[in-house]
This record gives sequence, C-alpha cells and structure tokens, in this order.
Amino acid sequence: MKQSILNLVLSSSMLLAVATHAGDKVDYPDGYRTWTHIKTMVLHKGHPLENPFMGIHHVYGNAKAVEGMKSGRFDDGTVLVFDLLEYMTSDNASTEGDRVLVGVMVKDNSKYLSTGGWGFEGFAGDSSAKRLVDDDGKSCFDCHAAEHEHDYVFTRWRD
Amino acid sequence: MKQSILNLVLSSSMLLAVATHAGDKVDYPDGYRTWTHIKTMVLHKGHPLENPFMGIHHVYGNAKAVEGMKSGRFDDGTVLVFDLLEYMTSDNASTEGDRVLVGVMVKDNSKYLSTGGWGFEGFAGDSSAKRLVDDDGKSCFDCHAAEHEHDYVFTRWRD
Repeated sequence: MKQSILNLVLSSSMLLAVATHAGDKVDYPDGYRTWTHIKTMVLHKGHPLENPFMGIHHVYGNAKAVEGMKSGRFDDGTVLVFDLLEYMTSDNASTEGDRVLVGVMVKDNSKYLSTGGWGFEGFAGDSSAKRLVDDDGKSCFDCHAAEHEHDYVFTRWRD
Repeated sequence: MKQSILNLVLSSSMLLAVATHAGDKVDYPDGYRTWTHIKTMVLHKGHPLENPFMGIHHVYGNAKAVEGMKSGRFDDGTVLVFDLLEYMTSDNASTEGDRVLVGVMVKDNSKYLSTGGWGFEGFAGDSSAKRLVDDDGKSCFDCHAAEHEHDYVFTRWRD
C-alpha cells in the first residue's frame, strides 16, 4: 500500500515535471537594444537559410553572453538575440528596414536539457507576443548542434 | 599702468585660450564596443563617400548620445562612434572583415564652437593612436553642416 502511494506520488511528480517543462517558454528579451552588439551579417537571396533568415541580422548579448563568447561556455542566464531586419540597397548604399523577427536563445541547463541547455524562441516582427517556434526548439537545435564545441553558439566575439 | 597690465593679462589669456583650443584632441573612445548600437549601414563601390567610407559601418553611442538621438539635441559629453569594417560577400552571405577606421564625434560646446560644438577625429584601423583628421574637423563639419536641424548628426535612432 505504501509502495502504491509512493508510485502514485512519483508518477504525479513526473507528470508535473513534464508539464512544467512544456511551459518553459522563453521570455521576450526586453531591453536587448541596449545590450552589447556582438556582430552583424547579411544573408542574401539564394543563401540556404534565406527562409526565414534573409536580411541583415545583428547579434546582441547580455553581460553573461559576452563573458561566454570569450570563454566558449555560457552560464545559465545567458541571453543571445538574433535581430533580423530587412536589407535594402539603392544608390550604392544598403540600409536597414523593418524588423522581420527577433530570435532568442536563453541558457538554462535544467529547463532545456534536451536542446543542449538552450531555450529557443522567435518573435515575429516588432511583436513581443507572436511566437514563431512551435516544436520546443528542436528544429533550431538540429542546426545549432553542429556547434557543440562552442556550446551550440554560431556567433563568435570580435573586437 | 593698471590698464596696461590688464591688457597684458587679457592678451595672455586669449593666447592661452587659442593654444588650448588647438590642443583639444578628441580622445579614442575606449570601451565603445559595449555602448549602445544605434544603427548600421553599408556603403558600396560607387557611393559618393566610398573614399574613405566604403564598407559596413556601425554607429555606437554612449548614454548621452542615446538621449540626444531621441530629443534631437546632444549634451556636452555625448560621444558617437562610426565603426567602419570591411564588407565581404561570398556564397550569398556578407560578413564583416578587418576594421578600416573608427570615426568619433564628441560634443563640447566650449571646445569645438567653430565646428558646431562637435570635435571630430578618425583613428586608422585598430589603432588608438594613428589619427586621420588633420584640419581640426573642418572637412568633417562641412558635410555634417547639412544636418543643422538635428544638431549636425546624420544618424537617427531606430527601435
């Protein structure tokens, strides 16, 4: 009888754990525009990642992200932002246009163990509510897995 | 006699003022890479400013610069940085290369009155010592003068 109750309690805990995991949504990175700008890149038409990443993107990081860039390991609490804008060229000058999406990686080894300790999310345009990732970051992680020696982060610090 | 001494003192002060003005070099903006990234633009071959500004440039500002961007008036102590890097394209992706120059604007209405209250300087490549401006910023200001309604600053804040 005691064993049955214990089993019941354990099962409930596990269900709760799974439920909590599924609810671990990545927050919109409020204030990231004043965080450290790490690097910029432009993906043009014809690039393998043009859908959905065509345009000019800036990568921003909070203080822990900047530390991690230098050591190659990122502590829990690290937040990296991939800020994608339209990229327009005329008269031999290219400028930034409307925001396409805001991609976010948040490090939390307990919450996001199955995706390398990183939570992934995307927010459409200027919205902090319209979410773009619907598979708990599995498809994001499939691509980032190639960077396992740099804690699954593509971006490198440059001075 | 008293008047003569007063004249002598005044003349000496004026000479000192002129000497001080000529020595008001703009400092290298230590730490600007962690200041706020304001915007980015790419100038291609054929652009009127290709020499010397061809490449990808990021504009960074200290806290006073960000305040000024929003009000359109910049307080003394504002520092804006124009960080110019090489821009290379291959396989439908464009990336940042070596640093070409670091341009700086510093606001000080008493020091730089003849150039709109702004001190201008450029530093070659990654050097904080090799200076590029040899006319006290007059040629820089000639171009920036067009932006007199925005306190001589071309860059605008974007969210």
